[in-house]
Amino acid sequence: MRSLMNERFLKACRRESVDCTPVWFMRQAGRYMPEYQAVRASHSILEVCKTPELAAQVTLQPVERFPVDAAIIFADILLPLEPMGIRFEFAEGEGPVIQNPIRDRADVERLQVSDGSALAYVGDSIKQARKALSGLVPLIGFAGAPFTLASYAIEGGGSKQYLVTKQFMYREPEAWHRLMDKLARVVTNYLQLQIQAGAQAVQLFDSWVGCLSPGDYEEYVLPHVQLIFEGLKREGVPLIHFGTGTSALLRLMRKAGGDVIGVDWRVHLDEAWATIGYDVAIQGNLDPVSLFAPLHEIERRVEDILRRAGGRPGHIFNLGHGILPNTPMEQVAATVELVHKLTQR
Amino acid sequence: MRSLMNERFLKACRRESVDCTPVWFMRQAGRYMPEYQAVRASHSILEVCKTPELAAQVTLQPVERFPVDAAIIFADILLPLEPMGIRFEFAEGEGPVIQNPIRDRADVERLQVSDGSALAYVGDSIKQARKALSGLVPLIGFAGAPFTLASYAIEGGGSKQYLVTKQFMYREPEAWHRLMDKLARVVTNYLQLQIQAGAQAVQLFDSWVGCLSPGDYEEYVLPHVQLIFEGLKREGVPLIHFGTGTSALLRLMRKAGGDVIGVDWRVHLDEAWATIGYDVAIQGNLDPVSLFAPLHEIERRVEDILRRAGGRPGHIFNLGHGILPNTPMEQVAATVELVHKLTQR
Repeated sequence: MRSLMNERFLKACRRESVDCTPVWFMRQAGRYMPEYQAVRASHSILEVCKTPELAAQVTLQPVERFPVDAAIIFADILLPLEPMGIRFEFAEGEGPVIQNPIRDRADVERLQVSDGSALAYVGDSIKQARKALSGLVPLIGFAGAPFTLASYAIEGGGSKQYLVTKQFMYREPEAWHRLMDKLARVVTNYLQLQIQAGAQAVQLFDSWVGCLSPGDYEEYVLPHVQLIFEGLKREGVPLIHFGTGTSALLRLMRKAGGDVIGVDWRVHLDEAWATIGYDVAIQGNLDPVSLFAPLHEIERRVEDILRRAGGRPGHIFNLGHGILPNTPMEQVAATVELVHKLTQR
Repeated sequence: MRSLMNERFLKACRRESVDCTPVWFMRQAGRYMPEYQAVRASHSILEVCKTPELAAQVTLQPVERFPVDAAIIFADILLPLEPMGIRFEFAEGEGPVIQNPIRDRADVERLQVSDGSALAYVGDSIKQARKALSGLVPLIGFAGAPFTLASYAIEGGGSKQYLVTKQFMYREPEAWHRLMDKLARVVTNYLQLQIQAGAQAVQLFDSWVGCLSPGDYEEYVLPHVQLIFEGLKREGVPLIHFGTGTSALLRLMRKAGGDVIGVDWRVHLDEAWATIGYDVAIQGNLDPVSLFAPLHEIERRVEDILRRAGGRPGHIFNLGHGILPNTPMEQVAATVELVHKLTQR
């Protein structure tokens, strides 16, 4: 493997000083790009995920168009559920639909904990993407966290109130912990596979965990996430721990693990960093809707975030959640350049 | 008017000591009750709201069934939009649908700021409910806050990401402030009307404001909410300020105003109270989904909240958001009794 030409992102993950603040965007390969739409015109999401050439191609698209400091492998958060025995499809414009949602202990017992070999195609995508990147920027691997995966598996798709998930948790605590334990082991294996294939950092997406009270997070989620981070420590790559709506969970998320904590826009970056402690790095936290604003408004918001980061080593600029469909590409480009320009050392 | 037989709620709003912690539930008159369903079987939501006899009847239903310490007038959050010129209907199971959503400055300019007389029927409902309550418990009036009302008016209904609302805010800041100013004046008039009709406390529901960054809240929302609380101060009744997902907004919400701050379950009650300061009262904060849990689980959660309230005067027990449809009534009853029993002085 050729050595990296741009190490800003990895250095910031390790809280080392950098020439300027690294920036990448969650869901930076997505529907807002015509070249992504072109691929999707003839391939479903799952086809792209399961065809390493296509996954690698899509992974590189934002890197080719914008001077972002990291690539993230193109994959779907639900992929690891498939070898567990959970069947799903993507309904057009509806998001994922689980065909056999988990509703009781017996469903949990039936779930397979695979060693990850059924997900080898993601490893192949990573190898191909690494090769195609040729050291330009590091490649991030990722997985959904147990709670977020469980919420899809139990609700049968996306949710607003997580009513079925929480009911399961409250009414069947043993089955819940068994489910979370299985998911944690699957996710650990899956991320190990990605790291062994060449992922130079990995991010755990606990996207929907912010619907929980801090007490419920501590009891029903934290121990399982901790297991994952414990299991990945020895792999030696930076571990990012991300969620949305987590203002009151940050201390607990930090306790659960991660070298970098990813925060959304609903908390000031400086307050979040003070809460998690300066001995971990922080990633965030522009509201994705800001990218629809005029440039001078974006500028004001980016400046505010950078001011709150205070030039301290260990800040990775990102959105607070994924890039939205229809985001204007010129605003994405301008934001990357702005972050680099405003933080030049 | 007969004097109040139960002043626990009003005393707690004023942070006076009480014989036990008062409890009421947001949306305590709702679909989970058969007597409510019976009324709704032959009347639409708007018919109930606009027929003072029915509104008063529904308002009293939870008070007749459970030993709650306050009633809240039955009304819909969108009512004040109607005399402004915004037309809406309730699609079955879909929530509200706005027929002429606000999309530009001209739409904002067209909005009427009424003196509240078009909402006199809410005043009549309050008078009838007060009479029917006959001093049993105090009656709370309420209104949606400007941001939450604006989000419905702009999105055209409920929303998950508030994409159109935030775009409006970022792209048309002047029109946004003009809209918020009009809404703030309408809401102030509306709440004054309710107080004059007999509401013994009022709650401002900024239910969806938690989607904003603290910076955006401070700039685009706070001054308008402040205007409302300033305008209501001289009315002499307790003012409750509520939102969900507001962990990182609490300091600002407190600055905006209110004698009581209502918080949801996504923050520990003790941390929230320490944040807003002990010179205001606090209301909350059981996850509404908890009411679907077995009784011993509810008990554990209620005990935790009461422990965090620490016996300090000024805690009003409530859910973190409205009671959900299908909530088991026996769990609602048990929760009220539990709070009373565990806090007996």
